[in-house]
Amino acid sequence: MSFSVTILGSSSALPTSKRYLTAHLVNHDERFFLIDCGEGTQLQLRRFKQKTARINHIFISHLHGDHVYGLFGLISSFSMLGRKNVLNIYAHPKLEYILNDHFRYFDTDLQFPIKFHSIGSKKTQTLYEDDKLEIIAFPLKHRIPCTGFIFREKQRLLNIKRDKIEFYNIGIREIINIKNGSDYVTEEGKLIPNEELTSLPKASKSYVYITDTKPVDSAIPFLLNADLLYHEATFLESDTKLAKITYHSTAAQAAKFAEASKVKKLVLGHFSARYKHESKFLEEAKPIFLNTILAEDGMKIEV
Amino acid sequence: MSFSVTILGSSSALPTSKRYLTAHLVNHDERFFLIDCGEGTQLQLRRFKQKTARINHIFISHLHGDHVYGLFGLISSFSMLGRKNVLNIYAHPKLEYILNDHFRYFDTDLQFPIKFHSIGSKKTQTLYEDDKLEIIAFPLKHRIPCTGFIFREKQRLLNIKRDKIEFYNIGIREIINIKNGSDYVTEEGKLIPNEELTSLPKASKSYVYITDTKPVDSAIPFLLNADLLYHEATFLESDTKLAKITYHSTAAQAAKFAEASKVKKLVLGHFSARYKHESKFLEEAKPIFLNTILAEDGMKIEV
Repeated sequence: MSFSVTILGSSSALPTSKRYLTAHLVNHDERFFLIDCGEGTQLQLRRFKQKTARINHIFISHLHGDHVYGLFGLISSFSMLGRKNVLNIYAHPKLEYILNDHFRYFDTDLQFPIKFHSIGSKKTQTLYEDDKLEIIAFPLKHRIPCTGFIFREKQRLLNIKRDKIEFYNIGIREIINIKNGSDYVTEEGKLIPNEELTSLPKASKSYVYITDTKPVDSAIPFLLNADLLYHEATFLESDTKLAKITYHSTAAQAAKFAEASKVKKLVLGHFSARYKHESKFLEEAKPIFLNTILAEDGMKIEV
Repeated sequence: MSFSVTILGSSSALPTSKRYLTAHLVNHDERFFLIDCGEGTQLQLRRFKQKTARINHIFISHLHGDHVYGLFGLISSFSMLGRKNVLNIYAHPKLEYILNDHFRYFDTDLQFPIKFHSIGSKKTQTLYEDDKLEIIAFPLKHRIPCTGFIFREKQRLLNIKRDKIEFYNIGIREIINIKNGSDYVTEEGKLIPNEELTSLPKASKSYVYITDTKPVDSAIPFLLNADLLYHEATFLESDTKLAKITYHSTAAQAAKFAEASKVKKLVLGHFSARYKHESKFLEEAKPIFLNTILAEDGMKIEV
């Protein structure tokens, strides 16, 4: 089952010639979720040959332009390309007003429905749920209301052993029960314990997206042990004061959070355009959290 | 004196992997003017290493998203980069409301003033004038109010011959008079006719920008003999009906207008993403107007 993240833009507020504005595309089992939508997101989706038309859910962390301005063009292109499917947008409630005014101003005659879902910024909130995945928003600490997102696979079912199905001639209904943990009783009344029939499934995976925010010094309990953490690192250690004033994090602060949260892998991004040598971000993060990499536009990371 | 146009985006409403949305940068004597500002314009300005900070005037042809959506991010970046200079924006009056609402919605605290200039859509209007250049808007025929732009150099002064200045020991005030066409009277009272003292200046150049519009079948008198014409060619001949319905032009229609207007060179752009073989645009235009080229993103054309 696929579970990957493609970085579409990894700069902070100012784009550079190598880094576009923030957007991530998550592919979970061939369902596509966009997180944030900075200017140029539709251009990056084309450049990196992504399945744009299959995006049905867009999550916006907060209403700063570098995370939002690509939404107008993307929605407009969806409409021109004949989209009919509902587009779900999850964001601070103000965005609904902004979009409605925008469509009115530009006489936009959308050919598909948009369903708007408000994100409250004070507490954890489940935004999306299907049979395999749930997506939860949680509050961050930025200058304006801002939330992180966790994409968490649901507990997978037990794997039933093929040879046992044949041997005991087990029917479909019983297979589902066994995969959920039941024992099996044969036609002759013999009880076969679940352990004999099943093996443990692969562990459920999770992806955590955290930008823009002041450092969250201690782990957030329900993020513990995530497989992949994307965390903003707008600044280097030398600009810690600036990070504090602007409600952003340094590479070291991101690494400390990754360490405290016992995540398996950390991806840093949202770099300020002021730094010439980006390897510094890695130099400052790795002594604290070894399994750290730097985001690059177009990078695809398996969760 | 420099006079060039750099194409920043040459696609129509839908961008492609090679063509961004509409924007042109005009450099006249190291003054920089932006025409239209589709999504990604600030990214293209960086990519093609243009002097973005020196843009003080932005002209918007009409309020369709593919010509406007890059404005929000560009203005935001100007502000973050510490701009102090006035930014002049020339557009349909509705844009002023859109921008003001936008800044309010996004709590944008601009660090520089914007001066808004309304373009009427019914008649020709001089928008800008300095000692060397004037920029004039004129109405086009699109689904919503839309204007073309002509960048026209003012009549250049006569060139005064250096050896004559020395020979007659002519003062600065007289030089200006002579460059404006006056004869010269020496201290001894001898009249030297202007023709003896001057040579003709280079011809004034002009650049015409026409998109989006139905074909204007006959020449527009004041555009006659322009040095460079950019004209939209959204469609090919086979889609003439579609062009009519959507108020766009075909390559042949653009070429006919170039021919009627006796321009020196035609650049086609704003191609619909539906066509695989763009050479067809050239094949259909060249038999009508030979000196035709196709716009490409990043292309710089001397006027």
